[in-house]
Formats: sequence, structure tokens, C-alpha cells
Amino acid sequence: MTAKLYGLGVGPGDPELITVKALRILQRVKVIAWPAPDNGVSFARSIVEQYITPDQLEIPIIVPMKVERHPAKDVYDQAAKLISSHLDSGSDVAVLCEGDPFFYGSFMYLYERLEADYDCEIVPGVSSLMASASVLQRPLAARNDVLSVIPAPLSDDEIEARIGQSDAIAFIKVGRHIERIKSLLERLGLLQSAAYVERASLPNQRIFPLAKLDDDIAPYFSMILVYKGGETWISSLNIKGEM
Amino acid sequence: MTAKLYGLGVGPGDPELITVKALRILQRVKVIAWPAPDNGVSFARSIVEQYITPDQLEIPIIVPMKVERHPAKDVYDQAAKLISSHLDSGSDVAVLCEGDPFFYGSFMYLYERLEADYDCEIVPGVSSLMASASVLQRPLAARNDVLSVIPAPLSDDEIEARIGQSDAIAFIKVGRHIERIKSLLERLGLLQSAAYVERASLPNQRIFPLAKLDDDIAPYFSMILVYKGGETWISSLNIKGEM
Repeated sequence: MTAKLYGLGVGPGDPELITVKALRILQRVKVIAWPAPDNGVSFARSIVEQYITPDQLEIPIIVPMKVERHPAKDVYDQAAKLISSHLDSGSDVAVLCEGDPFFYGSFMYLYERLEADYDCEIVPGVSSLMASASVLQRPLAARNDVLSVIPAPLSDDEIEARIGQSDAIAFIKVGRHIERIKSLLERLGLLQSAAYVERASLPNQRIFPLAKLDDDIAPYFSMILVYKGGETWISSLNIKGEM
Repeated sequence: MTAKLYGLGVGPGDPELITVKALRILQRVKVIAWPAPDNGVSFARSIVEQYITPDQLEIPIIVPMKVERHPAKDVYDQAAKLISSHLDSGSDVAVLCEGDPFFYGSFMYLYERLEADYDCEIVPGVSSLMASASVLQRPLAARNDVLSVIPAPLSDDEIEARIGQSDAIAFIKVGRHIERIKSLLERLGLLQSAAYVERASLPNQRIFPLAKLDDDIAPYFSMILVYKGGETWISSLNIKGEM
């Protein structure tokens, strides 16, 4: 058994923010798998599109977007089977993962189906967490700060309990929860300390003081960073659409 | 004013885990600055040593290791002055940062001295947080997990309050606090859920179930990851020195 399964972190969006290692593996493997929603294109694939060559076999993993709480079991079962068949026949397979494979990524659903039987390697990537802080041009966490990463789908009570214990907070999976998170932060006196970042590192990135954002739904690839004590610079954030 | 200051994330240790972008900038700038402790070599520089050419000017920033709470003010003042002079004369300067520049990095001390006067760009990097999860081969955080990053120098009480509110925990800056953190986790019933990772992604990396680690001091580049519910796989962790 020599074929290997790679979980390849391809970074937050800018194709140049892929690592040298992930790029080398990507350009060497025969088979590339990538997730895509059933209502749009694959973000992970779009990041590295320019590096993929026509002789590489691609396996789309089309994930139904209706299923929120449970991963699309059948889809991952079938994808794991197909990936297995390539590994069994001696071809390395790279699964593309936006950001980092093991930081809230969907790669884990394939990994848990394949790791017992195959040699696997995870290539870590630049997370959108770090990319967001870099485009805001402010340190995410410093010295003895406690940083909490909080998924926005949690309830207000759950979120409130965590906020109190943190110096810096990153909300992920913001999506349709944005209005609720905004209200919650306002109630807690933190709205002016919150910055909104969408598609960090991409040409169409958007940056806003959260208080000035009117969107009632945010794209999947957005994040809210709360910098306690950051009111002044956040209020003067330039809204940058371009890099 | 065209010269630019770059905060370059060079990743967790493996020279291939630098991004394509950081490598491109590193190979293009005339001046490279890097931090080093006064009692050893620069980790950031050692990561990218093979990419630096003799015609590039290097600025060591030697940081006294005795100063724990306060950054070495004079050292950063002088380094900022020297970097300014190169920027003023039209040379781009890249400051090497291990991991990510804005994730608990010392780059912020230079950045806060220079950002008002110079064009700055932060190039995010792969953090040792993500690298540690990748070498442990277990997702750091998934679904609606709350992840907290906790600096080990905080007091037991402060740490305990944060642990209760988190599904996954990463302790950073472990160093001489390792015995205390171990005792604290034991008291909270979490010692068997903790994995220790040292120098993730480097040839001399070490991985241990924390319970089996006898070291009474850990190197600066080590991390403890607590996976609530992870007792079984952590106890069977293979201790890997090689990649």
C-alpha cells in the first residue's frame, strides 16, 4: 500500500496564500477531490484552479446545502468509496480544503471514513482567521490574551457565556446569524468593538465596522472579529474592496 | 514613498509550509529583519535560511529573554529606527515572523512603531496551532465547537474559568508552566484528554499524551491541545520524532 490520501489546506482565498508544500503535492497527484455546494461553485477548487492541469482527474463532492446540522452522509460515503478505489489502484489523492483542513473543515467527514485504512497526511493551511486579522491590519491576539473562536449558530446564552471569558473573539459561520450576533453584541456593549471581514485576501474582499454593516445575510466566507478596546480604530476602518 | 514594510508569516517550522506569497516577497526584498533570543538562534530565520541569498541585508533583532512581561522596549525602538532608515531610502523590508505575524507574534511591537508612517502589508502564515492539529492527525475544532486559545502564564483560576466554556482548548506559551498546567488539567479531569506537541512539522518534532510526558520545562515552541472526549486516541498516540 503506497498510495496516500492528502488533506490539502489551500488557504483563505488568494491563490498565492497556498503553501509551497501544498502546491507541490497538488501539482504531483493524479487525482484531486474537492467539495462544492449543490447551488454554486467549489470555493476550494476556485482558489487553486490555475494550478490544476487537464491530465489530473477531478472528483467533485457535491454537498446538499439544505442539511445544516448533519453532514450529507450518503455524499461522503460515496466520495470515500470513489477515493478508496483510486488509492487501491495506487494513485495518490489530494482533497482540497479551503483554509486549514482541521480547523472547522468538512475534510474531517472524509478523513473519518478513510483514516483507518489508508496512509493520510494533513498539510496545514493559512486559516481565514489569520487572513482576516492580516487584512484588518490589527493583531488578532497578543501577550496573554485569551482568544475564543465561536460558531455563530450557537444560542445567545451559549455565546454570551463564552464572550465574557475572552479578550478577543472570532465568530465563524456567520451567514444568516449576522443580525442576531449584531444585536447580541450591541446588548453586551461590544458592537463598536466588532469588525466584519468578508472574503479576506480575495479581490472582492469587504471590510466594515460591524455597526455600519446593513447586510441581513452574510456569505459563508465571512467572519466577525471582536477586539475589546478596539473601538477607535474600528470606527475609522476604511472599507476596502480592493487588495 | 514607495518602500513597503512586510510582516511575513513563515509558518510553523517546515520550510515548505511557507506560503508562495511570503516566499516570493522574501526572495525579492533587499532587507530582511528577524527576531532572535539573546541566548540562541532565530527560529524565524532558521525556517527560511535556505531561501535567503548573500546579497540580502539582514537585521537581527536580539531580544533579551529575561524580560517576560514587558517587551524589550529599547530593542524594538532601535530596530524600528534602523528599519525606518531603509524604508526611507527606498528599500522594502521584510520582517520574518514564525507562524502567523498577528497571532501572538512579536511583530506587533515593530508594527505599532511603524504602521502610522509606512505602507505595511501583513502576509498571514500557517500557525503552529494548525500545524499541531495536523501532526496529531485530529481535527482541532469541528461543527459548533468553541475553541479557546489560552496562554499558559495565566493563573489557575483564570484558566479554569475559560476551560469550562470551551469544547477544545489550545495552550500556548507552555514553557516553564507545563507542570502547573498538567496538575490543573488532572484536577479538572482533563489530563487524559490532553496531547503535547513540540516543534510541529520539524524533523525533531515530539508528540506525547500529556499524561506520559515527564519534562518539567517545555521549549517555547510547544503546545498542549485538549480534546474533550479524546481520551482513547490520545492514550494510543504514537510518539513520533520523525515526519
